[in-house]
Amino acid sequence: MSVITVERKVLKKNDQYALEIREHVALQKIVVLNLLSSPGSGKTTLLEKTLEKLKNRINTAVIEGDVQTDQDAVRIARHNVPVVQIVTNGGCHLDAALVLDALKQMDLSAVRLLFIENVGNLVCPAGFDLGEHHKIVIAGTTEGDDKPLKYPKTFRVADVCLINKIDLLPYLDFNVDVFIENAAKTNPGLTFFQLSAKTGEGLGPWIDWLENRTVAQP
Amino acid sequence: MSVITVERKVLKKNDQYALEIREHVALQKIVVLNLLSSPGSGKTTLLEKTLEKLKNRINTAVIEGDVQTDQDAVRIARHNVPVVQIVTNGGCHLDAALVLDALKQMDLSAVRLLFIENVGNLVCPAGFDLGEHHKIVIAGTTEGDDKPLKYPKTFRVADVCLINKIDLLPYLDFNVDVFIENAAKTNPGLTFFQLSAKTGEGLGPWIDWLENRTVAQP
Repeated sequence: MSVITVERKVLKKNDQYALEIREHVALQKIVVLNLLSSPGSGKTTLLEKTLEKLKNRINTAVIEGDVQTDQDAVRIARHNVPVVQIVTNGGCHLDAALVLDALKQMDLSAVRLLFIENVGNLVCPAGFDLGEHHKIVIAGTTEGDDKPLKYPKTFRVADVCLINKIDLLPYLDFNVDVFIENAAKTNPGLTFFQLSAKTGEGLGPWIDWLENRTVAQP
Repeated sequence: MSVITVERKVLKKNDQYALEIREHVALQKIVVLNLLSSPGSGKTTLLEKTLEKLKNRINTAVIEGDVQTDQDAVRIARHNVPVVQIVTNGGCHLDAALVLDALKQMDLSAVRLLFIENVGNLVCPAGFDLGEHHKIVIAGTTEGDDKPLKYPKTFRVADVCLINKIDLLPYLDFNVDVFIENAAKTNPGLTFFQLSAKTGEGLGPWIDWLENRTVAQP
């Protein structure tokens, strides 16, 4: 048996769990977003700011994926939303079986929007369907405008690209137009939002996008 | 057969190739460094600045690992050092078999220092011995001071940690002392250098460290 065969079986099994997740969340009218990025792109800070903005507007829940530590879940829990931490213990991505287990531990009855913060890794998570409706890639301006060319799969599978840390643009050699051009080469259908989780600049259109995707709450 | 069994076999095979690399470079008195980091930590820029400083002092060569594109090899080739690009086509790390193949294509007769720039990924490359003498982890100040806690394995297997982008410290909530404390918790034996590949600040001690590691050239 070759490694490739095993990998295919793992993926097939993953897709079965992803289907189960889709059925589970469809019943409850929950929109699921899978957040992908490098380590240190500001995913958790961006998620915290997003939860603040959505407070009293959309009921949210969060699944946190990390190689180690539960400190992201601790940060998210301060926002009084349901949160489950998945620690992969060295695993480089979340898979649908882990997410399904987490989902079954959560009370999602009032939730309309579920964020899954994947492990910080611009390569491996892109290959795993977590039953999400949209994959969102977050790229920091500090990471360079060549990243969509160097990690094309992640940009290819995403629907939305959040360009974070625009407050640092004056201090960096990062060309937003070049970045967008590189990303659009890989995936012409990408929707871009330029923002800074730290300063709050540019968050509005992203929040509007989220509100437009969720089903009106009863 | 379980996935874990297959993974162990892959690693065992990798270690055999890593041993072959060690024998190959020992004969030629070459020191091998394996550079690990997130995407966008500034690995390639740092490598370019390092090559400039080492010019006419130590003969170097470079193996470039990327998921896609040869643009890093093109950048390195401008410095007139032997360079081979390994494109993993989606693979999330280099392995010893790939590196050994690359080595065999290079004329290393005058080379004393070989840099292997791994795929940008703070998780997977840490598990693969490439026959290197030292693993070097590069962490950008833009990535946050919590990264050693969240990606402990990479910091545990490294001998040296380069804290890059210190020129951006005035604009970030990054505490160098907290970062070092977090990294030292994981690996008390780590040697740290604080530098900026962009401005050149702090490169001196890193270059000295490299010179002290290489065998005197004939």
